[in-house]
Amino acid sequence: MEVTRRNFKDSLNAVYSAIEEADFLAIDGEFSGISDGPNVSALTNGLDTPEERYTKLKKHSMDFLLFQFGICTFTYDQTKSKYIIKPFNFYIFPKPFNRTSPDIKFICQSSSIDFLASQGFDFNKVFCNGIPYLNQEEEAQLREQTEERRNQHANGVGTPSYISPSSSKGPAHVPEEHKDFINRVIEKVEALFTNSEKTLDLEPCTGFQRKLIYQTLNWKLERKERFIQVSKVDDEERKRREQQKLEKEQEELNDAVGFSRVVHAISKSGKLVVGHNMLLDVMHTIHQFYCPLPEDLQDFKEVTMCVFPRLLDTKLMASTQPFKVRNDHQHLAGRSLNPADTFLPSLTETAEGFPSYDTAQEQLHEAGYDAYITGLCFVSMANYLGSFLTPPKAYISARSKLIEPFFNKLFLMRIIDIPYLNITGPDLQPKRDHVLYVTFPKEWKTSDLYQLFSAFGNIQVSWIDDTSAFVSLSQTDQVHLCCFTLQISTSCSNRFCFSCMFFVYFWVFFYLFFFFLF
Amino acid sequence: MEVTRRNFKDSLNAVYSAIEEADFLAIDGEFSGISDGPNVSALTNGLDTPEERYTKLKKHSMDFLLFQFGICTFTYDQTKSKYIIKPFNFYIFPKPFNRTSPDIKFICQSSSIDFLASQGFDFNKVFCNGIPYLNQEEEAQLREQTEERRNQHANGVGTPSYISPSSSKGPAHVPEEHKDFINRVIEKVEALFTNSEKTLDLEPCTGFQRKLIYQTLNWKLERKERFIQVSKVDDEERKRREQQKLEKEQEELNDAVGFSRVVHAISKSGKLVVGHNMLLDVMHTIHQFYCPLPEDLQDFKEVTMCVFPRLLDTKLMASTQPFKVRNDHQHLAGRSLNPADTFLPSLTETAEGFPSYDTAQEQLHEAGYDAYITGLCFVSMANYLGSFLTPPKAYISARSKLIEPFFNKLFLMRIIDIPYLNITGPDLQPKRDHVLYVTFPKEWKTSDLYQLFSAFGNIQVSWIDDTSAFVSLSQTDQVHLCCFTLQISTSCSNRFCFSCMFFVYFWVFFYLFFFFLF
Repeated sequence: MEVTRRNFKDSLNAVYSAIEEADFLAIDGEFSGISDGPNVSALTNGLDTPEERYTKLKKHSMDFLLFQFGICTFTYDQTKSKYIIKPFNFYIFPKPFNRTSPDIKFICQSSSIDFLASQGFDFNKVFCNGIPYLNQEEEAQLREQTEERRNQHANGVGTPSYISPSSSKGPAHVPEEHKDFINRVIEKVEALFTNSEKTLDLEPCTGFQRKLIYQTLNWKLERKERFIQVSKVDDEERKRREQQKLEKEQEELNDAVGFSRVVHAISKSGKLVVGHNMLLDVMHTIHQFYCPLPEDLQDFKEVTMCVFPRLLDTKLMASTQPFKVRNDHQHLAGRSLNPADTFLPSLTETAEGFPSYDTAQEQLHEAGYDAYITGLCFVSMANYLGSFLTPPKAYISARSKLIEPFFNKLFLMRIIDIPYLNITGPDLQPKRDHVLYVTFPKEWKTSDLYQLFSAFGNIQVSWIDDTSAFVSLSQTDQVHLCCFTLQISTSCSNRFCFSCMFFVYFWVFFYLFFFFLF
Repeated sequence: MEVTRRNFKDSLNAVYSAIEEADFLAIDGEFSGISDGPNVSALTNGLDTPEERYTKLKKHSMDFLLFQFGICTFTYDQTKSKYIIKPFNFYIFPKPFNRTSPDIKFICQSSSIDFLASQGFDFNKVFCNGIPYLNQEEEAQLREQTEERRNQHANGVGTPSYISPSSSKGPAHVPEEHKDFINRVIEKVEALFTNSEKTLDLEPCTGFQRKLIYQTLNWKLERKERFIQVSKVDDEERKRREQQKLEKEQEELNDAVGFSRVVHAISKSGKLVVGHNMLLDVMHTIHQFYCPLPEDLQDFKEVTMCVFPRLLDTKLMASTQPFKVRNDHQHLAGRSLNPADTFLPSLTETAEGFPSYDTAQEQLHEAGYDAYITGLCFVSMANYLGSFLTPPKAYISARSKLIEPFFNKLFLMRIIDIPYLNITGPDLQPKRDHVLYVTFPKEWKTSDLYQLFSAFGNIQVSWIDDTSAFVSLSQTDQVHLCCFTLQISTSCSNRFCFSCMFFVYFWVFFYLFFFFLF
């Protein structure tokens, strides 16, 4: 179901109930770009620590806009032995709520925009009809503003009063030439209290005169086109109107919170949220709809657990045993369906009233479809785990113990030796004493590095920038010899490595010794 | 005429000839935002110097995208006594040309996007079908790359050669298991030279095998779907193909230069270019299609004169005598047409084949229409100048001496005492010794400043940020007394002002004198 600002309010109940009844839900986001600084290969260095990766993504990816959010809910139907799915495709845009609300700036990366354009992405749905949103702080501020305005108004209404233009205490200064006019108005209004009329139409007046009237009469005034109507309002009527106004304000506030309400509903439900290579999706979701991302990775993990109490990354699952070896899961891991594979779609059925995705005619990179494929991917892999049980089980639920090992671990793209970010605990700390940090002239290519290290066995190169890289030796015992031989341009990743220093000093002493000797 | 990537090449001749025949042309741009930093009132402080204003706009406005460019050409028809107009509305987007071309990032400001959306702007035309562009340096780089590739290829073709898989000198290492296959290919290719066949279809092979073949045979190979076809090519055929290839490369290069070609044509024509409040339009045009803006204002002026040898800003014209007093020009200065005024549109007639704009049904904020209205504005004001001549003239051409005083002066928005940026000379340097720089707590409002200065006559406040502002006194003689009385929080705009210092030291000595006396 496609959801824009136009049908958001009407769709909200359907979204809430879909989340409520779901066994799990899959999400996917489309962004206006990936990196505003280094290119993707530098952004995802193979030897990043989890902290480094988080810091880089936070710095270089968060100024883009998450402008399409796909949610696909999966609810298992025992009688049909398949999942009933409800896919939603939300278009999102930070339309300013009023003059004082933040005027969001976001970056677009032309390659990303061009890619989405080539996939038939509809930018007008984002920019003209995107659903607005507020993060928690903005929402709190807006609530406060509304509350304040309401209190001010309540006080004003509580003690109806007006300041006579002749009174010198009042803040409104009435120029000489308008005094007559204003006095006439005052008289008429005062007469209104004593006569039987319910309303009073004042004579046409200029904007300035109207302003003077407003300033002078702190009263319940209703503007018409070019003249002012003054109404007597009895208590009951006043309460009714206030109630109306309160409701209207509440509605406007809810409209401004917009898509964040959907994210709050997901959080509250505590349901398993499945994504594919979902670190950026999670970071963007928190950044846009909750709060600016914290500096520290540990704090990020804590916030993540509040927003998404249970996560599962299919990319990590597919690259782990026993899926790693199965070609079809690898294929799924790239999230593209084999059109010939009619088995997979038979695992699900689209709920009534929802437009069904045709897997034969791929609609990849519409977030709703991507979320659907991601969920399908998860169902297929979960069921595959069931085949190892004795007796084998054809259906493994999202609550099964079998998939628990994959909970709350987010795939870390292209890191050689740390497959995932562990949201609920400390991260893996692989030994990296076979890794050298190497700097070189910017003309160097990977082949130059291979040549330099040719004497020390096979190597793996992870570029940092034009003039530096990490070089992993396959033979750990070669590290210090290597450091020593190539001493100037390399250093072991432990910068105070005793062995390295020993080699260097040894060489210096050796040199000096012979220098003085001869 | 609406121009996107789809019809750009076909429209180019029409654009060129419209520029060539025009008496003058009007331009207008739409941007993805205005300021990525301070809000507009801080960006356009009333007491900016031209240098400060340029620096601020360069810093805070250039990361937005100029994504719609309107050009309306005006050609006077003597027989009809009216201008024939040709309006063009170009959609622009920096679609990456190839993998090595720059991946442009630009900012969007949600309020600007929302405003354009409310005007019915079609974002898909920008993002899916925008015309690409290159600045001068990118164009030069691309030409160089193409040239280099061509030379390499020419050398390669000159000496057809291939390396046998058994040769140990060659860089291509053929693994043992593929040697048989590659050897079979070599035999077949060698046979091709001696037999009468013109082409040779090799047996289906894997991607890796294809790579091995390419590496092994440095020859004219044409890829087909899953197998390789090898052709014998005689000299004539080879030249023909090379010529074809050259032309194709040239065309691709031109496609990549894209919209910049239109801007080059405007520059080359030397025609008068009219804009409305056009400083940002000029800055964006140079920045996107020529070169990054220079640091220095003087350098910017020089670049501007190269790109637009003759400019006229209708906003400046309309705010100058004798137009300033005429309400209808003020109205035009706001660039909104009075629908009742049927006189203005009668000054022009849309050229055949161009969709005509209906001025009664305003299409403001489509750049082509805005350019049209700007040109109309200029024609009306120029003709009005003619009414002062004896005898009065009804038509004043774009080459008339009467409008020369307005050439190359760009309106400076909201600067109190410098109405324009003078592109061809030094800027005005109004006296500002009645201006005070004031700092204060961030809770202060304009009214607090009025109160503070109430003893010193009327003031004008130009906010700098939350805690500082320029305060202009209307009575210049009050400045130093004012500085003295309010000494802590203000200083005369000359920070080493002798008078101010004198007052301060006088007070200090006075104090010390009495302190020691008693």
